[in-house]
Amino acid sequence: MGERMKLALIGFGVVGQGLARILLDKADELRNEQQFTGEIVAVATRSRGTLYQPNGLSIPKLLDAIGRGSLNQYPDEARLARNQDILTLIRECSADAVVECTHTDFQSGQPAADYCAAALESGKHVVLANKGPVAVAYAELRALAAKTGKRLLFEATVMAGTPCIRLAQTALAGCRIEEARGILNGTTNYILTQMEGGLSYADALADAQRLGYAEADPTADVSGRDAVGKLLILSQALFNRKLTIDQVAMTGITGITPADIEAARAAGERYKLIARVSREGCSVRPERIPTSDPLAAVSGATNAITYQTDLLGPVTLVGAGAGGIQTGFGLLADLLALPQ
Amino acid sequence: MGERMKLALIGFGVVGQGLARILLDKADELRNEQQFTGEIVAVATRSRGTLYQPNGLSIPKLLDAIGRGSLNQYPDEARLARNQDILTLIRECSADAVVECTHTDFQSGQPAADYCAAALESGKHVVLANKGPVAVAYAELRALAAKTGKRLLFEATVMAGTPCIRLAQTALAGCRIEEARGILNGTTNYILTQMEGGLSYADALADAQRLGYAEADPTADVSGRDAVGKLLILSQALFNRKLTIDQVAMTGITGITPADIEAARAAGERYKLIARVSREGCSVRPERIPTSDPLAAVSGATNAITYQTDLLGPVTLVGAGAGGIQTGFGLLADLLALPQ
Repeated sequence: MGERMKLALIGFGVVGQGLARILLDKADELRNEQQFTGEIVAVATRSRGTLYQPNGLSIPKLLDAIGRGSLNQYPDEARLARNQDILTLIRECSADAVVECTHTDFQSGQPAADYCAAALESGKHVVLANKGPVAVAYAELRALAAKTGKRLLFEATVMAGTPCIRLAQTALAGCRIEEARGILNGTTNYILTQMEGGLSYADALADAQRLGYAEADPTADVSGRDAVGKLLILSQALFNRKLTIDQVAMTGITGITPADIEAARAAGERYKLIARVSREGCSVRPERIPTSDPLAAVSGATNAITYQTDLLGPVTLVGAGAGGIQTGFGLLADLLALPQ
Repeated sequence: MGERMKLALIGFGVVGQGLARILLDKADELRNEQQFTGEIVAVATRSRGTLYQPNGLSIPKLLDAIGRGSLNQYPDEARLARNQDILTLIRECSADAVVECTHTDFQSGQPAADYCAAALESGKHVVLANKGPVAVAYAELRALAAKTGKRLLFEATVMAGTPCIRLAQTALAGCRIEEARGILNGTTNYILTQMEGGLSYADALADAQRLGYAEADPTADVSGRDAVGKLLILSQALFNRKLTIDQVAMTGITGITPADIEAARAAGERYKLIARVSREGCSVRPERIPTSDPLAAVSGATNAITYQTDLLGPVTLVGAGAGGIQTGFGLLADLLALPQ
């Protein structure tokens, strides 16, 4: 990448802004300790404008503009281009890497999958926080990346920036991973934890919504669908096997009652929404697990994953599963791993 | 390394044999999936002979010989050299990497530190399971490695092969680690877990000795000294700071009574021997931690570490902390990470 890595951010919500803040706040540390300088040359949103500045955009001005509601608030300057077509911008900009952090669509993976393909075809690396393209179109995108000699990385798609993908693919290389089982949705884990504290499901959900953990429509979380989407990604990353949502046995947490929670507690167990994937298949469902299981200790919105391996036995990673800065770090970690 | 990596194993106890078994049992998998073939050309022990065969030693014959008590049981063959001086063997053999897994000496780091220096000086990479050289002589050995363009890796020295070093140095690169706190000694965690089950300290210790978790002289474990040694390594790996054993506040578990354990339980807490290290210093001592802490769920001989980071908050890794195969994997992971 020479002196600096030029970046195009597609999507500029909480996660994209999180990455921008990290690049701003840790610029000196990243340059001195990681020999990395990230320069944002393009930002594209679907309803709040796009910007392209081959000389590099000012991160404080970007954050200020989006804070005022639109990239159109970014001040005029020489060579600045606005409101381009996103696919054209991706293809024609001077970025070394495209950072895809638009909204996830687990059914089609679009339009993000097309954005990723355009980036790879035009010779740019792709790093994603968007889960859709990896869940739906991984094989095609990976083949495209191999063809153009570029990388497709997606640490931020599962457990935010907690490095569960890198742990499996790099640090555990040489081990055979037999199964992954985890708590991959923080919202439902928060609700179950609150129910253990005595709240009803409805009150715990309202609590999660008040704190911003749950959406106004919480269906994707509480039905288990979000966790299923992450399993599709893990199935690809760990077992090189494509699954579709329909192939996953899915039961959410909406049927769990305070009496269920109490019965588990009386037996020395806790209810967790457990997502499992192996070469044989995968499932998402509430399970009663003994308190001696490392996953049982995972409270609140925290996520965790246990890899069952041939040489080490179980290896468990526990950490943040959401958040703009935390997910932004996942993107940064992938950028640091790109070939220089 | 070309087609295969030639290895010299210094020390051939449980850990060295563990690595040899992995290289034997997973030869096809490592070749196909990791493009790695490890060939043992030399094995050296201090009291059970040495072997050097530039054409490569047979792993089944090595394991058979050591199983019968001595490398001298390895059958004669052309070009096989026996019972050489270890330093001379290290310097003059054709190995690409020297695997140091002799007994740990936390005071002097010797003779392993000299073995490592000889390996680096003669143009060989070094990977260690032996904690002594990293705890005592890391800066000197690292400078030597930099001078000769070789690597010095030591994943297996803390938490066996559970990749806590690689997690911190690679997967979390870009985060600032503020503190590490962990359960780094499985023997004491096993004893504390058994005491929670109602055993006295003496009975729990006897139990640990019967199962092979504790030595006949358990002082190094129960005094906290083993955990302190691992903190010295983490201080170097995480903070580039050398500490000596005397600088660490150390309290073992010998003073913990069943009444203490019960009082903790009544308060919703568990006693753990917690090892902490930050830029400010380090300590090993029994601490009462709430059951909501991921470290509280770590039972039996399992180890765990929590890195407190600036961007992700706490990240916890839980896994095996001992065992021949588990530690052997730590050595393999380092070998896989060596430049090809």
